[in-house]
Amino acid sequence: MKGGLTNRQFKEIRALIERGSARKKTGLFTGEGERFFEEIPEELIEKVVVSQSYLEKHPDTDAFVLEDEAYRKLCDTKHPQGILAVIKKPATAPVDIVSLASADGTTMILEGLQDPGNLGTIIRTSEAAGVNCVVMDRNTVDIFSPKVVRSTMGSIFRVPFIYTDDLKNLLSKLREKGVALYAADLAGKDMKSVKLEKKRAFAIGNEGAGLSKEISDLCDAKIRIPMKGKIDSLNAAVAAALLMYME
Amino acid sequence: MKGGLTNRQFKEIRALIERGSARKKTGLFTGEGERFFEEIPEELIEKVVVSQSYLEKHPDTDAFVLEDEAYRKLCDTKHPQGILAVIKKPATAPVDIVSLASADGTTMILEGLQDPGNLGTIIRTSEAAGVNCVVMDRNTVDIFSPKVVRSTMGSIFRVPFIYTDDLKNLLSKLREKGVALYAADLAGKDMKSVKLEKKRAFAIGNEGAGLSKEISDLCDAKIRIPMKGKIDSLNAAVAAALLMYME
Repeated sequence: MKGGLTNRQFKEIRALIERGSARKKTGLFTGEGERFFEEIPEELIEKVVVSQSYLEKHPDTDAFVLEDEAYRKLCDTKHPQGILAVIKKPATAPVDIVSLASADGTTMILEGLQDPGNLGTIIRTSEAAGVNCVVMDRNTVDIFSPKVVRSTMGSIFRVPFIYTDDLKNLLSKLREKGVALYAADLAGKDMKSVKLEKKRAFAIGNEGAGLSKEISDLCDAKIRIPMKGKIDSLNAAVAAALLMYME
Repeated sequence: MKGGLTNRQFKEIRALIERGSARKKTGLFTGEGERFFEEIPEELIEKVVVSQSYLEKHPDTDAFVLEDEAYRKLCDTKHPQGILAVIKKPATAPVDIVSLASADGTTMILEGLQDPGNLGTIIRTSEAAGVNCVVMDRNTVDIFSPKVVRSTMGSIFRVPFIYTDDLKNLLSKLREKGVALYAADLAGKDMKSVKLEKKRAFAIGNEGAGLSKEISDLCDAKIRIPMKGKIDSLNAAVAAALLMYME
């Protein structure tokens, strides 16, 4: 059976792509492209969807088939590859995050990050840097939105993360466990002059506004990435990467 | 006089926004938004364009006025701010680039970079890191395209850069001047084990394919950013930033 624009399954998939509320209700999200497909743990694949053209090139694919026009409507990329998976959201329990974040190494705390590409890149870089886990507040963009998922390049399945309604409370718990909390703050100390603790978390704020005073003040120390020239901030994913790779 | 969709000036501005060829022919490009506007050196401003709504809020603005609908058509952002400048391209001569790049410090060499956000972020980070200059080959995305311009956050006016038709030749010239050339290459040495020369250039390749063998082989050394996990590459802007901020 081939689905078109009026098909029920098409509409359900489209809802997952376009609406965080649909992803929340169903516990599902989507990922597009052959390379991304390879990264998905098999047990998380709920459904495979391909375009008619893709099926013609790969006739053995066992998948729900959409007319090309309908498939294209689903994708925000210029050249969709014709294969898409509906995926069960991976889940990390809050208790596990506290335990992961209390190990030696680095935890990233994100407050109100808005750019999907930035978040995806931070998740990708977190895997490369061997970060313990990533904690986000509810004002951070939805990690399961297609642009974020794509930018993670598959790291979304390998980096533990969690959204919390109460970032302050979670930070307090980390501090109790002996994790040093560093706020990325323009008013902080030059990061090159700071000797980092073994167990540490870096808090990074919104692209425009930076960290809230509340969260910044809760941290043990404020640190600043040195900047020359006339600019007063770095791209959030770049700032996160420089902190993660600090010695 | 108020311009609409059929207005000649509207069409000319639209061409500058949409087509590299129009930017090349006229030597002009555009930048949108109040904050960006503040970054433009006055002598480079060719024309100011505002939407009808913007003019109503700022009646003293001396500018070419477009109907709101026409103005919106020009912008690829969701919430255009209503003010846009047509700007003369800043120019750096090849001879100046060689001299800038031969000073102590870091030069960035970009080969075939395709993502506008990545290029803009690299220019922005280059200013923050105090990079001497940025050299790009002709296969690199147009720095004057609106998405790149926006991501630079104004650094486009302060970081010297050049496009070259002959990257190999330029690299040879830098080497003659005593600049150490480092290729970002997965097969290279861990960057943390490399003692950098004072005069140095980092070559970074295309997001998918990396550096061409030709350019990589021309460099004095290949270096690699250490990566854990299952991923085999970093976002290009992140990789560039980590190299720029190396001690």
